[in-house]
Amino acid sequence: MTNRPGYRGAVQTPGGLFDGVFSRGQVDTSGQAWLQAMLDTEAALARALEAAGLAAPGAGAAVTTAAHADAFDLAALGQQAARTGNPVPTLARELGRRLPPEAAAAVHKGATSQDIIDTAAMLLARRALAAIGADLAGAAAAAASLAAAHRDTLMIGRTLLQQAVPVTFGLVAAGWLTGLDEARGRLAQVAGSRLAVQFGGAAGTLAALGEAGPGVATRLAAELGLAVPTLPWHTDRLRIIEAGAACAGASGVLGKIARDVTLLAQSEVAEVHERGGDGRGGSSAMPNKQNPVAAIAVLGCTKQVPGLLATLASAAEQEHQRAAGAWHAEWLPLGDLLQRTGSAASWAVDMLSGLAPDPARMRANLDAAGGFPLAEHVAGLLAPALGRPAAHDLVAKASAWAVAAGQPLRDGLLAGPDAGRLAAAGITPDQVEQALDPAGYLGAAGAFVDAALAAHARTEQNDRP
Amino acid sequence: MTNRPGYRGAVQTPGGLFDGVFSRGQVDTSGQAWLQAMLDTEAALARALEAAGLAAPGAGAAVTTAAHADAFDLAALGQQAARTGNPVPTLARELGRRLPPEAAAAVHKGATSQDIIDTAAMLLARRALAAIGADLAGAAAAAASLAAAHRDTLMIGRTLLQQAVPVTFGLVAAGWLTGLDEARGRLAQVAGSRLAVQFGGAAGTLAALGEAGPGVATRLAAELGLAVPTLPWHTDRLRIIEAGAACAGASGVLGKIARDVTLLAQSEVAEVHERGGDGRGGSSAMPNKQNPVAAIAVLGCTKQVPGLLATLASAAEQEHQRAAGAWHAEWLPLGDLLQRTGSAASWAVDMLSGLAPDPARMRANLDAAGGFPLAEHVAGLLAPALGRPAAHDLVAKASAWAVAAGQPLRDGLLAGPDAGRLAAAGITPDQVEQALDPAGYLGAAGAFVDAALAAHARTEQNDRP
Amino acid sequence: MTNRPGYRGAVQTPGGLFDGVFSRGQVDTSGQAWLQAMLDTEAALARALEAAGLAAPGAGAAVTTAAHADAFDLAALGQQAARTGNPVPTLARELGRRLPPEAAAAVHKGATSQDIIDTAAMLLARRALAAIGADLAGAAAAAASLAAAHRDTLMIGRTLLQQAVPVTFGLVAAGWLTGLDEARGRLAQVAGSRLAVQFGGAAGTLAALGEAGPGVATRLAAELGLAVPTLPWHTDRLRIIEAGAACAGASGVLGKIARDVTLLAQSEVAEVHERGGDGRGGSSAMPNKQNPVAAIAVLGCTKQVPGLLATLASAAEQEHQRAAGAWHAEWLPLGDLLQRTGSAASWAVDMLSGLAPDPARMRANLDAAGGFPLAEHVAGLLAPALGRPAAHDLVAKASAWAVAAGQPLRDGLLAGPDAGRLAAAGITPDQVEQALDPAGYLGAAGAFVDAALAAHARTEQNDRP
Amino acid sequence: MTNRPGYRGAVQTPGGLFDGVFSRGQVDTSGQAWLQAMLDTEAALARALEAAGLAAPGAGAAVTTAAHADAFDLAALGQQAARTGNPVPTLARELGRRLPPEAAAAVHKGATSQDIIDTAAMLLARRALAAIGADLAGAAAAAASLAAAHRDTLMIGRTLLQQAVPVTFGLVAAGWLTGLDEARGRLAQVAGSRLAVQFGGAAGTLAALGEAGPGVATRLAAELGLAVPTLPWHTDRLRIIEAGAACAGASGVLGKIARDVTLLAQSEVAEVHERGGDGRGGSSAMPNKQNPVAAIAVLGCTKQVPGLLATLASAAEQEHQRAAGAWHAEWLPLGDLLQRTGSAASWAVDMLSGLAPDPARMRANLDAAGGFPLAEHVAGLLAPALGRPAAHDLVAKASAWAVAAGQPLRDGLLAGPDAGRLAAAGITPDQVEQALDPAGYLGAAGAFVDAALAAHARTEQNDRP
Repeated sequence: MTNRPGYRGAVQTPGGLFDGVFSRGQVDTSGQAWLQAMLDTEAALARALEAAGLAAPGAGAAVTTAAHADAFDLAALGQQAARTGNPVPTLARELGRRLPPEAAAAVHKGATSQDIIDTAAMLLARRALAAIGADLAGAAAAAASLAAAHRDTLMIGRTLLQQAVPVTFGLVAAGWLTGLDEARGRLAQVAGSRLAVQFGGAAGTLAALGEAGPGVATRLAAELGLAVPTLPWHTDRLRIIEAGAACAGASGVLGKIARDVTLLAQSEVAEVHERGGDGRGGSSAMPNKQNPVAAIAVLGCTKQVPGLLATLASAAEQEHQRAAGAWHAEWLPLGDLLQRTGSAASWAVDMLSGLAPDPARMRANLDAAGGFPLAEHVAGLLAPALGRPAAHDLVAKASAWAVAAGQPLRDGLLAGPDAGRLAAAGITPDQVEQALDPAGYLGAAGAFVDAALAAHARTEQNDRP
Repeated sequence: MTNRPGYRGAVQTPGGLFDGVFSRGQVDTSGQAWLQAMLDTEAALARALEAAGLAAPGAGAAVTTAAHADAFDLAALGQQAARTGNPVPTLARELGRRLPPEAAAAVHKGATSQDIIDTAAMLLARRALAAIGADLAGAAAAAASLAAAHRDTLMIGRTLLQQAVPVTFGLVAAGWLTGLDEARGRLAQVAGSRLAVQFGGAAGTLAALGEAGPGVATRLAAELGLAVPTLPWHTDRLRIIEAGAACAGASGVLGKIARDVTLLAQSEVAEVHERGGDGRGGSSAMPNKQNPVAAIAVLGCTKQVPGLLATLASAAEQEHQRAAGAWHAEWLPLGDLLQRTGSAASWAVDMLSGLAPDPARMRANLDAAGGFPLAEHVAGLLAPALGRPAAHDLVAKASAWAVAAGQPLRDGLLAGPDAGRLAAAGITPDQVEQALDPAGYLGAAGAFVDAALAAHARTEQNDRP
Repeated sequence: MTNRPGYRGAVQTPGGLFDGVFSRGQVDTSGQAWLQAMLDTEAALARALEAAGLAAPGAGAAVTTAAHADAFDLAALGQQAARTGNPVPTLARELGRRLPPEAAAAVHKGATSQDIIDTAAMLLARRALAAIGADLAGAAAAAASLAAAHRDTLMIGRTLLQQAVPVTFGLVAAGWLTGLDEARGRLAQVAGSRLAVQFGGAAGTLAALGEAGPGVATRLAAELGLAVPTLPWHTDRLRIIEAGAACAGASGVLGKIARDVTLLAQSEVAEVHERGGDGRGGSSAMPNKQNPVAAIAVLGCTKQVPGLLATLASAAEQEHQRAAGAWHAEWLPLGDLLQRTGSAASWAVDMLSGLAPDPARMRANLDAAGGFPLAEHVAGLLAPALGRPAAHDLVAKASAWAVAAGQPLRDGLLAGPDAGRLAAAGITPDQVEQALDPAGYLGAAGAFVDAALAAHARTEQNDRP
Repeated sequence: MTNRPGYRGAVQTPGGLFDGVFSRGQVDTSGQAWLQAMLDTEAALARALEAAGLAAPGAGAAVTTAAHADAFDLAALGQQAARTGNPVPTLARELGRRLPPEAAAAVHKGATSQDIIDTAAMLLARRALAAIGADLAGAAAAAASLAAAHRDTLMIGRTLLQQAVPVTFGLVAAGWLTGLDEARGRLAQVAGSRLAVQFGGAAGTLAALGEAGPGVATRLAAELGLAVPTLPWHTDRLRIIEAGAACAGASGVLGKIARDVTLLAQSEVAEVHERGGDGRGGSSAMPNKQNPVAAIAVLGCTKQVPGLLATLASAAEQEHQRAAGAWHAEWLPLGDLLQRTGSAASWAVDMLSGLAPDPARMRANLDAAGGFPLAEHVAGLLAPALGRPAAHDLVAKASAWAVAAGQPLRDGLLAGPDAGRLAAAGITPDQVEQALDPAGYLGAAGAFVDAALAAHARTEQNDRP
């Protein structure tokens, strides 16, 4: 299946003026890809029918040989879709025309248009989920490298877009890593168990095949490498929602990382830079400028996903044995959701594998915080000597004095109004300095990095064939 | 502007296997259309600069001559978009290459990529809103014809998908008409006052043009037929939301009509049929079947719109002087929203202009309701003779009897347990029959149809040049 | 945990004028429920700290005793949330005030507000998913009964809201059943593995607890019955998306079923009725009317879910170590999404357990289709005698003749233009009648019902403790 | 109407643990507010009926006197809503019970439940839009003050979250101002022309009132101060979409401003601060920390709006004369959308009126950019002496040298490799310094601020009574 002709390694939407941004990666939901997936389904059906004795010997091979997207006029098929609301009737007729009568009789036998389109969607989704999963794995590998390399690289943590307490860049990268690994875990779950063949005929009974229907469905699934569903699922769209939601989860994780990168790359923060070179993200007028193009592209993609997911979830309200409109409303959003997620994942590999952290700048930003992020730590260290409430009050007062004076917390403590009390309590300047060392207030940061890397190693282990 | 080369009368998304369904009509947001709109913007800018003495004489004409989409390699531009996050830098360079140095100096002068893309989006939106408005007008004309022709055609009204009280098909069509006219009213408002040129330079100051900037912006707007905004609106996206919401309003109205058509066309209801012919909506296997393809296509389009609108509304949260991702996230959803709405509107013209109501079936369905929808009316007519509470009780009892007996309300009244009381009160069978006549219980239906037609006539009057 | 005081068995949103519709069932995301869940988290934290030797002996019990929502002024806490953006700082202070100093010292120790709110959200979600799962199980049981009882009850299948080919009501119910079971499968997955404690302190390092942090987190998770995450997930919101998406999947399945019920209950179709009684869905004026209130309520709920899911998916783009706004934007939509899904599930139990199918009406509607749904079947049966193309042509001609004449297909075949050809081919009227019998054209309908019931039985088996 | 009893000046959702964040301001869509609006509608209907001679003299006054929300059991009404899918039948009966028979006969006469709920929604929306408009005006006034006071306050402009070219804080505030004014313009449009009474009776014909229906509708509209629609709009939901979209537009503008504030308030940027005091946004542990609570709250609200808008837009697909579910699905999202927007607008007044810009820090950040944002300007100023290409090359080379050397652009020019060429061309260090002055590269910034303030003054002028 992986090398079936007609699928392309790269996206096929000629004319996309923004393709470089939104159609990066290996997800292909172009018209050409849809068409080939439909033809693959028709061909697999012919083979399944032949195996079941419901088509002439050789019909399966004949249909398979004819079922190449390149041999069809895609634009004409697209226009013909207006007649019945989808392109399959015309496609089946056109496919039949290319065949001798006996093989032609096997084309689309027992099937309805929705069988072909839904199964094709599953094929596209399977390839897309695999491609997205591979790119998430690539991004995770890069995040793991960053986490390992910067396990102990100090930086200031930021909450509500304000500096808070020290963290490490390794912990930041470990958070990215964990998100990526868990998102691809869900993608793999969906890909492995929820992508099922659709084969029910006109109204889900497979009546045209008599009692042979379920057997053909099972063979068809085997031919295509898809799961066999309990029932035809023409108007049970849980699979579509699950595939979409798994992508939206991945997209959410990617958007978070890209948002962090854009913020850390701000001129005033400058703690990470994206790989430049080849004119990328650059500006001839401002040579100091290096736009984080990959992160921006990730966000440009991920921000389109939630609305598309809402469309798929809304469209699940489908009537009777085939919906009048809600089914049709899924095709484009599903393709777009897969493609946007895929493009974001592909950009993320680029973004993370080329990300250059600047530990010196991280340290400088941390130091510029004046020691205030360590106030709580200082209070804790002074508590044994002063008692907890007194320690807290002393630090608060010293902090207020230092802020007002535009001085670091160190000076507030050692040269502020209560400096005498400190000395009287036997607290030495060295002890104060030590309490103000951010490296001493990292809690479980290192352990968390290790845990994330260990979990990642297990994920990788499980992924191996 | 209307005949500018490179724009196409029909959608240009080659490879769209579902184009016949989703890309009907005159809205064009293909890569080709985007490209031409960007080139039109660059050309108009060159002309504006020349007029302001900021470009060499003849530069405007030269750029205009070179600014033909057909002369550019769309796919290559699309791929180059990956370098900086959008295709404009490459496009401007390519355009300049086709020109002598003096004219080339006028290309993109003072502008930033966002100026070109946002203005191009406004041009596409203007053409799209015009096309959608025209199709809504066509649909409204068809609805008006139906309302006028069927002003007094009786049918059963339905609430909560249950038969309720009598209405007329004219009133149903008048409701469609009013929705269509009010939706296009809002589209015209947006088109007339909210589509504005974008021209602010790198960060909205037009610094590269010194003090001449606002004057150039005004000329640029005039060249393109767009409004002049108070300020460059790089990160004020209200215009985008308003254009999207106006389309979503139209889409909502269209979806309601199409839903009605699919329900009225149900085999068991059969009160309207879509025009068939040419194999449309047909089934060779079931010759009695005539799928309402246009209504289904409308719904297939309109159901995609709310999610796209949500994306645009979310994307309005844009940072500083140009957003990192949120701006990029608008391009595809805006185009898709315009195109889905346009396709729905185009299908609606087809749906309504070919709609065949079946007054006889409407009457039959109404009659089959057994008179129960008139129960309240009967009670009201009996009240003067019996007193209101007694009249109500009598009808309720007769109704219950009739339902239990599987008889119409008429029999419940004239042959049921209280038939004697009716006669004793001097109520004749004729009076009962008259009270059961649905034509006598239409209230303001006719007046409402007239009001809707009069409002439509005023709309048409106002639309004339 | 299940009987912890302060949780209520029913929704607590006093003032909800629409509560009867939208707040049915056991999901409780009221302010009271949030408050108790936060207090439960604080209490469990105190116990965990005590166990780790980080709080005074007895502190855990003391905090637990004080941590009753009823003892707090909810409205005042709500208003205080304005000061810092969330109610936890005030809540922690108020809780501390109710305790002796040693126990008070254990309150909120090492935690940040987000630890408390996120963990509380997980507790609410766990209870909600359990309640929704139980109602889905109830609905599935009802659907299974319908499927078993009506395994062979004939009805017309409908595609694109047009009559198509015969199906059985059992197959329809089996489709509902399968959707329900698969949706609750995913809910159970999320509930079982993805609801994790949140405990990271100010910026995810648990610095205030030194090296003891991870151990306390593990104990806290055990106290609350939640999973231990690899890392604190302050800005990795995949869990939220997954919980929301699992509900949206269930909601999509429920909406599909309810849409079917409203359509099948249409006056003109009347193949199912919802249980009435007690004035429900009734109309005194129209005694024949029985609105499908439960189905309408289900749809009223489910249609709100996709937009809420989009909000959660969008909000996943969270900055650094705590988001400025995106985190806050989750609280209400998550609660609403859980509650709408829960209300829909609860209504669905009512809808399906009281659903009255009308096999006679189903048969009547099928018969009224005039045999045309069997046209393809007839052609197939005639093929051996006539050859496939001739058989098809003959049936098509007979069909067209019958439709034009307003006659059933039977007459078109036996009394139409080609009646002689049939006879000449040795086809007897009996054979024609037999081919027109819908019971003979059900394909795998029965087998599919059996398969769905078997899968359901396995699901039930697995669910048992 | 403005002082009608039962409406509250502040939100009434007791139990909202997050009310301080999400329910700020004057928008009230609580159950109590809904109930009073429904009662106001019933009362106005009784008065209109009396005026039309369709109710007993005094009935209008009697109903009005009884129609106080406080006299009804809201929770009980809410639960009763389950019986018919909405609370109005119970409410009408309860209202009638409180009245003598003659007045009771006027209650709900001719109306359907949807008439009452839709009209009540319009009343709530009118009050909400007025409240939101007032808060937007307050925010605009604050933005105008900032724009005027800081018309010429230099700061660095930022695109794609990177420093770009100089702007002024006045221009930033002017952008906020223009967005706010244009958003409230649209709100006023909707409030002034699109909020219409709903009165159509059971199926939109007002049959129960015979020919008197339209006259009563007109009087009812006058009583309530709402517009008279062409037709009852039971299933034409354009008004709902328009009200929701106008709010979403305002919300989009507010979110943009709040995002800017959070970014400008970052510790590393620190160009603006929100008003603190009273413990707001503060942290006892980190006295240097001042979280921008108002901006965060704005974002917490605005991020919920797009999903709610999508729900409303989706729900517009309503069947026949009253929708089974889609109508019901509007009530909560509409109320939530109004309330979130209102809360965001109220917070925005606080945010902007208390915003403290720090011009010195703005200047410092600008200066720290090392002159590179002026590179293009320098090249332009050198061009007359050196020729344009040479000037550009020289600056590019100097920039690259300076970046590599970690020096400002000034040194790259005056001490870099081409310093001699500059001197040889007669360019003095003074000229270079002048070219590097950001105040000289502001283009139309001042003019744009003036234009925004002038437009604001016109808006204010038009708003006066």
